[in-house]
Amino acid sequence: MNIQEAGAELRARRVSSRELTAACLLAIERGNGKLNAFLTVTPEHALAAAETADRELAAGTDRGPLHGIPIALKDVFCTKGIRTTCGSLLYKDHVPSYDCAVAERLAAAGSVMLGKTHMHELAYGVTSNNPHFGPVRNPWNTDRVPGGSSGGSGAAVATGMAFMAMGSDTGGSIRVPGAFCNTAGLKPTYGRVSRFGVMPLDFSLDHMGPLTRTVRDAALCLQALAGRDERDETSSHAAVDSYLPAEGVSIRGLRVGVPSNFYFEQVDPDVAAAVRRMVQLAAGLGAQVEMVTVPDIAGLNAIGRVILLSEASAVFERFADRRSDFGVDVRILFDQGALLPATDYVNAQRLRRQFVTAFLQLFAGIDVLMTPTTPTVAKRIGESTILAGGVEEDFRLAATRMVRGINVLGFPAISIPCGFDGEGMPIGLQMIGRPFAERELLAAAAALEDATEFHKRMPPEFGG
Amino acid sequence: MNIQEAGAELRARRVSSRELTAACLLAIERGNGKLNAFLTVTPEHALAAAETADRELAAGTDRGPLHGIPIALKDVFCTKGIRTTCGSLLYKDHVPSYDCAVAERLAAAGSVMLGKTHMHELAYGVTSNNPHFGPVRNPWNTDRVPGGSSGGSGAAVATGMAFMAMGSDTGGSIRVPGAFCNTAGLKPTYGRVSRFGVMPLDFSLDHMGPLTRTVRDAALCLQALAGRDERDETSSHAAVDSYLPAEGVSIRGLRVGVPSNFYFEQVDPDVAAAVRRMVQLAAGLGAQVEMVTVPDIAGLNAIGRVILLSEASAVFERFADRRSDFGVDVRILFDQGALLPATDYVNAQRLRRQFVTAFLQLFAGIDVLMTPTTPTVAKRIGESTILAGGVEEDFRLAATRMVRGINVLGFPAISIPCGFDGEGMPIGLQMIGRPFAERELLAAAAALEDATEFHKRMPPEFGG
Repeated sequence: MNIQEAGAELRARRVSSRELTAACLLAIERGNGKLNAFLTVTPEHALAAAETADRELAAGTDRGPLHGIPIALKDVFCTKGIRTTCGSLLYKDHVPSYDCAVAERLAAAGSVMLGKTHMHELAYGVTSNNPHFGPVRNPWNTDRVPGGSSGGSGAAVATGMAFMAMGSDTGGSIRVPGAFCNTAGLKPTYGRVSRFGVMPLDFSLDHMGPLTRTVRDAALCLQALAGRDERDETSSHAAVDSYLPAEGVSIRGLRVGVPSNFYFEQVDPDVAAAVRRMVQLAAGLGAQVEMVTVPDIAGLNAIGRVILLSEASAVFERFADRRSDFGVDVRILFDQGALLPATDYVNAQRLRRQFVTAFLQLFAGIDVLMTPTTPTVAKRIGESTILAGGVEEDFRLAATRMVRGINVLGFPAISIPCGFDGEGMPIGLQMIGRPFAERELLAAAAALEDATEFHKRMPPEFGG
Repeated sequence: MNIQEAGAELRARRVSSRELTAACLLAIERGNGKLNAFLTVTPEHALAAAETADRELAAGTDRGPLHGIPIALKDVFCTKGIRTTCGSLLYKDHVPSYDCAVAERLAAAGSVMLGKTHMHELAYGVTSNNPHFGPVRNPWNTDRVPGGSSGGSGAAVATGMAFMAMGSDTGGSIRVPGAFCNTAGLKPTYGRVSRFGVMPLDFSLDHMGPLTRTVRDAALCLQALAGRDERDETSSHAAVDSYLPAEGVSIRGLRVGVPSNFYFEQVDPDVAAAVRRMVQLAAGLGAQVEMVTVPDIAGLNAIGRVILLSEASAVFERFADRRSDFGVDVRILFDQGALLPATDYVNAQRLRRQFVTAFLQLFAGIDVLMTPTTPTVAKRIGESTILAGGVEEDFRLAATRMVRGINVLGFPAISIPCGFDGEGMPIGLQMIGRPFAERELLAAAAALEDATEFHKRMPPEFGG
């Protein structure tokens, strides 16, 4: 069941929020030992919130589509009175005294918070192989990573532990677990969702967004989340649209760009084939598909890396005396960032403006850009390199190759399920839109989702 | 004569723009050999523009207060077909193919461009002791510096070579020559005046503004210059005010803050006494003067230095193979900037936001902050250290100690003449306002100017 379906059942009195919540808590109880998707579960809090929602709905107070819906938050979102670890020993006993804006908005929308999902340490990686709290496992194959850094959110949504789980995305951390776990994963435009109260990794690259079972569920969540927040200086004043795609929404006439130079040659054949089928599907549904040349994506990725390494190391500089509290992979990244010269960072930010201009020019001719989300499916836990299209690459760089440049641009992007490889591992399609054009992006994604069944499949061992 | 007086004479047909222009050109011809205030003079261009202005005014086409007024531009402002050197060997033969926004706006206002004023190399210093094109000299004592980096603009306006000369101010470069040469020098709010076509030193600290003989002249110039320019991404959309202070404008009731912790102890006695007299004058005119504690100004200056060194080195990194084309002082600064880590730069920008917040809180209780512009009067050409209040300091750091933090904040500030030391060298008063409150700042400065005669004195050897 997805959010829309559950909402209909709730309003028809065929199910209560308490029942939905109990079902999620049961799924967590059954699955979390294998998947390690949740770091903290708050059943009392959840059941109390569910009962409140039931009372409100019974009394005719309807807070909208999320009312009574059980959801989860990545453990990067500060929650009042509930431990928020950021997957790090630095914060292992950190109990915030306030709620982040996302938690506030989701509570105001009547949703039921189940707990905090597990993640890559400090959100600084894509495996969610956390050395302190154990690895999160992929529900499609528990020997594999769920992707990251929002790996627990991906695993939770894919297995019915939550109808939605919030993620944060600095270089793909919503879209990659979405692709690896077979969920939708939406990274909205930079500034669209308030970051107040979210533990930062990188000021200029961090984005907040939902992982959900369907595109329309993601739209409903964005509707609740979007909007200016005075407490976040980077929060945008741009008007909030109506995001929910209509039933039977069409992709006809949409100008879809497919990049001819976006590393398609270094993509696994199964992934490339699945994405090409989606492109053909879009064309068959009436979209105007054309091959386009995108600005130097390797250059964009390179400056993104300079910005990420610099800003993340700046944020965590104050913990320089706690080296042993960091995992090796994360510590190495902080050390790398500390070596970068200021001039490289400044010039990376200068080039960034030029890339934004170049991509805006590209998007003058297209509405949506379609790419694989990742060049491969999820790899085995512990592997640090991967074969992508026959070339051995660092897994972290390979897995984020198609996604992290979009954080540098700040454009909105969504990953949706688009197939499975020969071993039954899910494959994601990335769709990228114009800044603050989430409405158009979600409509296009919904049209493709409506014409496919991939998002309905669940992991065999976990409800599928 | 100032701009207002010249405008009245022009409209009364008692003088022509051609006569004003010829008089300025004569002053340049007579004085420039001693002062080195202009790098390039464009008499044909100026006389032709003056004749056009005269024809337009005769025909009843009045472009406003600057119509027919001879002005000059610091050699950092790109001028179509006119060499623009930035005081550097890198650009010694640089003839731009376009006008900067400032030149466009001043031309549209009918002003007459006389030529390009000399400056500190690449605007990266406060002495205007240029190793490539010779030092600019202070008209009050030609053994002394005029301040910088807009030293030629200060010397030109102080000696009647131009009614206004544009300066750029990255860390005091308008206000310091204003103080050392006895002119008004206005650094508007960051984003108030377009920087399109101005050769950059530091993206986040560069400001453009006028040096003039009076505060009201500065207001008239700002009126012509202010406003959004799509070609400069940092240009503000804030509404443009009516800047000209009324005749007889009052300072009564204005809340004037005087900092108790802004290094007053390290200020020369003559300077401190002159500024204290201005504070007393303000109180006597009905201002509510109170001592205030400003946020850690030494910290603000320190992060400003990290930002300036980093950004300037990033801008000029591409000239790394032309070391011999830089003066020693400037080369050392570029080398220092190249050594800074990215994390320091990122954290400096983070602290900057906190300082802006702290200063906005301070300005909730005051309208204007008054300080000396510089801790001492102009020093001798070639001196690299200075005694300020008995303490030996690096001249560059000492001279910018009261001003460069204001660039980090982006707040508007003006320096106005406020006295002379025992050797007849001018002293400047700095007045700092709230962001985009230039109207209030200029009104306060005009009220003090109206009650004093310092701005009317000219250098003895040059018209005084």
